Amino acid sequence: MRTRLKNATVVCMDAGMTVVEGDLVIHNDRIDAIGDSDTPVDQEIDCQGCAIIPGFVQTHIHLCQTLMRNCADDMVLIDWLRTRIWPYEAALQPNELRASARLGLSELMLGGTTTLLDMATVNHTESVLESVVESGIRAFVGKCHMDHPDEVPAGLLENTQKSLHEGIRLCEAWDGKYDGRLRYAFAPRFAVSCTEELLRGVSEAAKDLGAFIHTHSSETAFENEWAHQHYGCTNIEFLERVGITNERSVFAHGVHVDDADLTILKRHGTAIAHCPSSNLKLASGIANIPRYDEWGIKVSLGADGPPCNNNLDAFVEMRLAALLQKPIHGPKAMPAARVLKLATIDGAAALGLEHEIGSLEVGKKADIVVIALDDDPGTNPGGSVYSRIVYATHRANVRHVFASGEQVVRDSVLTKWDVQEAIADSKRAFKSVMERM
Amino acid sequence: MRTRLKNATVVCMDAGMTVVEGDLVIHNDRIDAIGDSDTPVDQEIDCQGCAIIPGFVQTHIHLCQTLMRNCADDMVLIDWLRTRIWPYEAALQPNELRASARLGLSELMLGGTTTLLDMATVNHTESVLESVVESGIRAFVGKCHMDHPDEVPAGLLENTQKSLHEGIRLCEAWDGKYDGRLRYAFAPRFAVSCTEELLRGVSEAAKDLGAFIHTHSSETAFENEWAHQHYGCTNIEFLERVGITNERSVFAHGVHVDDADLTILKRHGTAIAHCPSSNLKLASGIANIPRYDEWGIKVSLGADGPPCNNNLDAFVEMRLAALLQKPIHGPKAMPAARVLKLATIDGAAALGLEHEIGSLEVGKKADIVVIALDDDPGTNPGGSVYSRIVYATHRANVRHVFASGEQVVRDSVLTKWDVQEAIADSKRAFKSVMERM
Repeated sequence: MRTRLKNATVVCMDAGMTVVEGDLVIHNDRIDAIGDSDTPVDQEIDCQGCAIIPGFVQTHIHLCQTLMRNCADDMVLIDWLRTRIWPYEAALQPNELRASARLGLSELMLGGTTTLLDMATVNHTESVLESVVESGIRAFVGKCHMDHPDEVPAGLLENTQKSLHEGIRLCEAWDGKYDGRLRYAFAPRFAVSCTEELLRGVSEAAKDLGAFIHTHSSETAFENEWAHQHYGCTNIEFLERVGITNERSVFAHGVHVDDADLTILKRHGTAIAHCPSSNLKLASGIANIPRYDEWGIKVSLGADGPPCNNNLDAFVEMRLAALLQKPIHGPKAMPAARVLKLATIDGAAALGLEHEIGSLEVGKKADIVVIALDDDPGTNPGGSVYSRIVYATHRANVRHVFASGEQVVRDSVLTKWDVQEAIADSKRAFKSVMERM
Repeated sequence: MRTRLKNATVVCMDAGMTVVEGDLVIHNDRIDAIGDSDTPVDQEIDCQGCAIIPGFVQTHIHLCQTLMRNCADDMVLIDWLRTRIWPYEAALQPNELRASARLGLSELMLGGTTTLLDMATVNHTESVLESVVESGIRAFVGKCHMDHPDEVPAGLLENTQKSLHEGIRLCEAWDGKYDGRLRYAFAPRFAVSCTEELLRGVSEAAKDLGAFIHTHSSETAFENEWAHQHYGCTNIEFLERVGITNERSVFAHGVHVDDADLTILKRHGTAIAHCPSSNLKLASGIANIPRYDEWGIKVSLGADGPPCNNNLDAFVEMRLAALLQKPIHGPKAMPAARVLKLATIDGAAALGLEHEIGSLEVGKKADIVVIALDDDPGTNPGGSVYSRIVYATHRANVRHVFASGEQVVRDSVLTKWDVQEAIADSKRAFKSVMERM
């Protein structure tokens, strides 16, 4: 199957930051040609007035939390977890979790996200995994581990060994499946909710199985205070000690870090997932992304969970990632092209996939977003294509999305399932989980 | 003409913050009923799954700058003005200015803005005024004054008396026209670009004519340094001295203010237009809105000009106004309901129109926005209606907009002119002004 996307502005996001006026040809699951091409194709899609960019890679998402969108506002992280999110996650049944995941995936795909790193909840991880399989996009998913007796509420508290075994079982069952589209990422929630034994066990299991690790780190000052109190060091020093920092680890947030922490991240090649909306909404602070860039530490982008955002929208996160640094570091900090890298090739690099996805290059997987730039008064009349995409484009401007060459969004409509049905399901699930909470 | 908007969630934004599940009836240009009503009507619009809110009031806009969207990024204010915006404004011809205004108005109306305070450029103000008349929405517009010989480039520099006379002529010709829908607002650009004689003249003319004054103030630290150097006081102390601070004045930005400045604003009833995107993008800082609230100073919201935003979108500004204060003042600062006031009734109050617009109450002007909340995965499954609107809604969710009872947006399509034509015009105008620059 060959598809030609015709007459577009192809924003490649390759090392040379190539921008091509012309076509992009998809052959099965890969990019076959960029620029003028007269290869015979099975279908052509006119992309006049559109930009083509790599699919967004979001490296910190909680699909399990989508039902709580707009229900947990104006709170600090720890209260938000203890009074809203944890009771909700503890109450979730598999069908509700599936509804949550499908609602979140609908929004993500319509907004051009084709790869995500997701932290599921403690139970029923299969509901998230199965929803991702159905969606057609690429995802790293992991069961959430929470076994610290002092810090985890009863409905989520796990036995350490049982928790580890469940993670290993899921990893063995799912990692690399669906032509490698599904990957497993062990997800100890954060240092505060995990015992040292569990974290060491996760480190070993992930190493043995070649899997990723996904955790929260240094989101709030509280985590560092807690680590100092319990372990006499910063949160990241503790995570290094128990083997959680490595080149297949992604730490969400990284707001409260010192030079020693940065040295550790740099040494191990651990990536940070920057979540600007979430960090503002929970009053956590502003991660110093220019400093990560100076140090050469991997940074990527994520919307986090809908209750602390309240979107799953790469455009919203990109615009904020660009704007937030400027009053602190000056107006030249985080220009639009830098930010678009954050949401594409840098996300791919955080997940070790920079040779497969994250840029538009011949031979790479066809994870592709077509954005209509010319028919919306809000993106016109012109200007830099990077500025248009990062500062002025909305999720509603996304026209087509391809994941591994499969068209998952056509003319702004999801091809994989009926979105209105997914919304109706989510409303029912929200009602039933609320009744149980 | 009577229209019933049926089966909605009516978010009144009145003093009691009433939320009604039911109908809203429009009779000619005013709101006739809220709640259940069986009055015979000429048309009914089904608003199941929608919220109805007051039309947004944006109190700082530059319609003249729309053509420069995405063309002036990563610069501080004064360089941005001197190398991009001023040369552009100086080059604008009337037909180009009209194209700029119509493009901006298209975006504003499709996004639910029904009242704006606009600063035009030095020349050809009629092009903006005529475009506003054609749009059907409510606007305060004023010619920009710039007469400071040291600080204004040749193409925009005015003779003080000629500048004043032109402002007075425009005010006499346009203020209060179209059933009061059009108001004149004198617009000395900012203290740096105006002589003391001009500012005193504007103060007197505005008082004589009962007109508003619209200026920039305390956007950057530079303005205070400049005022100290030239006048030995802060920018706002200087504006008070020359009579620019009064209850019919709106100062855009107010980022760099001290207690003496706040005392002046409070004493005169002068309003601040908060422009969070613009303040970030130009690295100006973050205005301390909770402090304005504590002092009881009028605050409202504005997107500023497209080159420093790069949107004219009340949803974008609301979300940012909510999120930005939280890391500084804690997560309870600027909750969603507070922010929706900022964009509606508080904007009306800044313009002295709180008894006519800004809330949904029987007898008020029918400036109304219908937002579809239930058919987008990104706003669901539910939660607080204020959170849904402020944190999760996009411009694309706006379905219908009424301005003084006239439907200016129907099913997300502008009724007043062809938007694709306005975009094509703007592209031609952009090209011609760029060639001349």
